[in-house]
Amino acid sequence: MRALGVIKSKILVEENIISKCGKFILESVKLCKVLIISDRNVAKIYLNIVSRELEKLGFQVQVFLINPGEQSKSFKTAEKIYNSLTLNFMARCDLIVSLGGGVVTDLSGFVASTYHRGIKLVHIPTSFLAMIDAAIGGKNGVNSKYGKNLIGTFYHPCLVLIDPLALKTLPPREFCCGIAEAIKCGCIGDKKLFKILENQDFYNNIEEIIMRSIRVKKNLVEIDEQDFGSRVLLNFGHTIGHALEKIGNYKKLSHGEAVSIGMNEITKISESMNLTRFEVLPRLKAVCRKYFLPTHNNFPSNQLQEAVLHDKKILNGYLNLVLIKDIGEGFIYKIPDKEFINFLKNKI
Amino acid sequence: MRALGVIKSKILVEENIISKCGKFILESVKLCKVLIISDRNVAKIYLNIVSRELEKLGFQVQVFLINPGEQSKSFKTAEKIYNSLTLNFMARCDLIVSLGGGVVTDLSGFVASTYHRGIKLVHIPTSFLAMIDAAIGGKNGVNSKYGKNLIGTFYHPCLVLIDPLALKTLPPREFCCGIAEAIKCGCIGDKKLFKILENQDFYNNIEEIIMRSIRVKKNLVEIDEQDFGSRVLLNFGHTIGHALEKIGNYKKLSHGEAVSIGMNEITKISESMNLTRFEVLPRLKAVCRKYFLPTHNNFPSNQLQEAVLHDKKILNGYLNLVLIKDIGEGFIYKIPDKEFINFLKNKI
Repeated sequence: MRALGVIKSKILVEENIISKCGKFILESVKLCKVLIISDRNVAKIYLNIVSRELEKLGFQVQVFLINPGEQSKSFKTAEKIYNSLTLNFMARCDLIVSLGGGVVTDLSGFVASTYHRGIKLVHIPTSFLAMIDAAIGGKNGVNSKYGKNLIGTFYHPCLVLIDPLALKTLPPREFCCGIAEAIKCGCIGDKKLFKILENQDFYNNIEEIIMRSIRVKKNLVEIDEQDFGSRVLLNFGHTIGHALEKIGNYKKLSHGEAVSIGMNEITKISESMNLTRFEVLPRLKAVCRKYFLPTHNNFPSNQLQEAVLHDKKILNGYLNLVLIKDIGEGFIYKIPDKEFINFLKNKI
Repeated sequence: MRALGVIKSKILVEENIISKCGKFILESVKLCKVLIISDRNVAKIYLNIVSRELEKLGFQVQVFLINPGEQSKSFKTAEKIYNSLTLNFMARCDLIVSLGGGVVTDLSGFVASTYHRGIKLVHIPTSFLAMIDAAIGGKNGVNSKYGKNLIGTFYHPCLVLIDPLALKTLPPREFCCGIAEAIKCGCIGDKKLFKILENQDFYNNIEEIIMRSIRVKKNLVEIDEQDFGSRVLLNFGHTIGHALEKIGNYKKLSHGEAVSIGMNEITKISESMNLTRFEVLPRLKAVCRKYFLPTHNNFPSNQLQEAVLHDKKILNGYLNLVLIKDIGEGFIYKIPDKEFINFLKNKI
C-alpha cells in the first residue's frame, strides 16, 4: 500500500484495493447513506464488488448509472443525480462514491460540491487518466453547449482509492490517453518519471508511475489550489491540445492524443526560440511513439490558428505558454498572442 | 461610511453608495468585463446608475435581467447566465455584479462560484433581507423541483455594497420580511440590537441595525464557515418556519413571516420545557407585532407535523433545535424528533 495526501484528500494506491474498499471508506466517513455513481461499462465489472463491500459494513447503498462518454457530463445528468439524492433523503453527512473514469469523477465531484453546498465524496477512479489526473487535485466540471468543463468548482474528495489492477480492463486507446498525462508530468516536474516511461516496462512499474505522476500534481496543486499561478504548468501541451480536440469535434482525437501532439508541437516552437535544450524534443517524440501516441498535427494550420485564437479572446492579448527547458523543468512563458499565432503559421 | 470584513468579503455600508459604486468596485478588482445580474423591477430604479458608474471608469458592462421572484432561482436561469458569460468571452478575472434582493444575490453567487470554477463577485443588495442575510456569509443556492436552495456552494464575494437608502423603494411586506431576520439576530446574539428594534425608531437607526445584524452573522460564520456547528444558530425560528413556508406552498407566507411565527412558536415550546426565561416570549411577540409580523401558526397542526417530519428524514432521528435562553443568548438543543413532534401536537 502506498499513501499520499493532496490538500484534504487521502490517496491510497494498492493492487486489488477495490475489493477491500469498504474498510478504507469506513475509516474516512461514518456509516451513512451512499450513492454510487458509475457508468454502465464500469458498473458491469465493479459495481457489485463495491456495493457489496459497502452494504456488508452497514452502509445504505443506492446506485446512479450514467451512459459512458463525454455527453453524460452535462447539467442535465447533474439534475437527475440531484433528484435521486433528494428522493433518497440524502444529507450533507452522506456520501457520494464515484466509480469510473474522468467523466464519472468530474461529474460526481461537481454534484457532490453543489448538493446541499457540499456532500462527502470518495473517488474510485478506474481509468489511468482519472487515477493520475481527474480524481486528483479537486477540480471538477460539467460541459455546457459552448465548451468543456466551463461549469465546475474546486472540491476535494476525502478519499481516493486507486487500484492499478483496474487498468487491466481498460481498452488500449484509453490507456494511452492517460500515458500522455504521465509523460506530461515527467516533462514538467519529474525527470526520473520520464526516464521510467522512456526506458522501463510500463506494467512492471505501474504503481511507481502512478505515485510519481500524482506527486508532480500534488506539488503544484498545494502551492496553487485555485489555479492562479504555478498550477498552470499542468497545462503543458494543452494550449495546442485543446485546440486540436475542438477542431476534431472531440471525436477525431482523444484528449491524450491531442495533448501528445500539443507537447511535441509546442516544444518544436520553443526549441526554435532557443528556450528548450536540443536533446529534449527527440526524447519526447520517442517516448510518445513508444506508447503509440501521435506527435504531429495533421489539421490545416489555419484551422489550428483559429481554434487557438478563440481561446485567446479570453486572455487579454497574452498567452501564458507552458514550455520545458529540459526534461523535468517546466516553466511559464508569457507571449503576445499575435506572436504565438505567427509561430503556429510558420512552424506547425 | 461603516466597514466590516466577513471572511474574504469587504462590506461597506453608506447612504447613497450605489451612485458611487464604481470607485469602490475599482478598489477591489482590476478593470475588466462585468456582467450585471438584476431583476426587472430593481433594474428600473438602479441599473442605469450602476452601469453608467462602471462604464465611466472603463469597465465593459453587459447586463442579464431575470424575472422577479423565486421561480427565477433555477438551474434553467443559471444555464442562461452561463451562456451569456461564455458568449461575452468572460474569464475568471472578470466580474459578476449582483444588483437586487436575495433571489438575485443567491443565483448570482451560485453562477459566479461555478463558472470557470469561480469568477469574481460583488453584491449590491437592495432588499433588507439581502443586506443583512443573503449577501453575507457566502452561502448561495438555486432551487430544484424538490426544494429550495438544495443546490448551492459556499463562495465569498470580494465586496458587498450596502445602501440603506435603497430600502426606501421597497414594498412594505418585503421590508418586514427582512426585519424578522434582524429580530432573529438580536435574539440569538445581540441584546442591544433587540432593544433598538424594540424601543427605537427603525428608520432613524437603520445603519446601526444593519451593522449589528451583519456582525451577529459574521461572528458565527467566521468560526463555522461551512455550517457544521455554531452557524446553525442562524436557523433560530427556521425549523418551524421552513415547514410553514412549504405548507403554504411558498405563497401564503413570506420567508420573514414564517420565521417570525417559527421563532414565537419554538419559544413557546422551549418556555414550556423551562429552557427559556419567562420574560422572553412576551417581548419577542411584542417586537414582532410592532413590525406587523405574525406570531401564531394558523395551519392545522397535523400538516405542520408532517412538513417537519419530512425534513426529519434527513436528520437521522434527531433534530438540532435552536432555542434562546434569554434575549441575545441562542443555543443548540438536541432532541429526538419524536419528542419534538409531540410538542408540536400539544403546544401549537
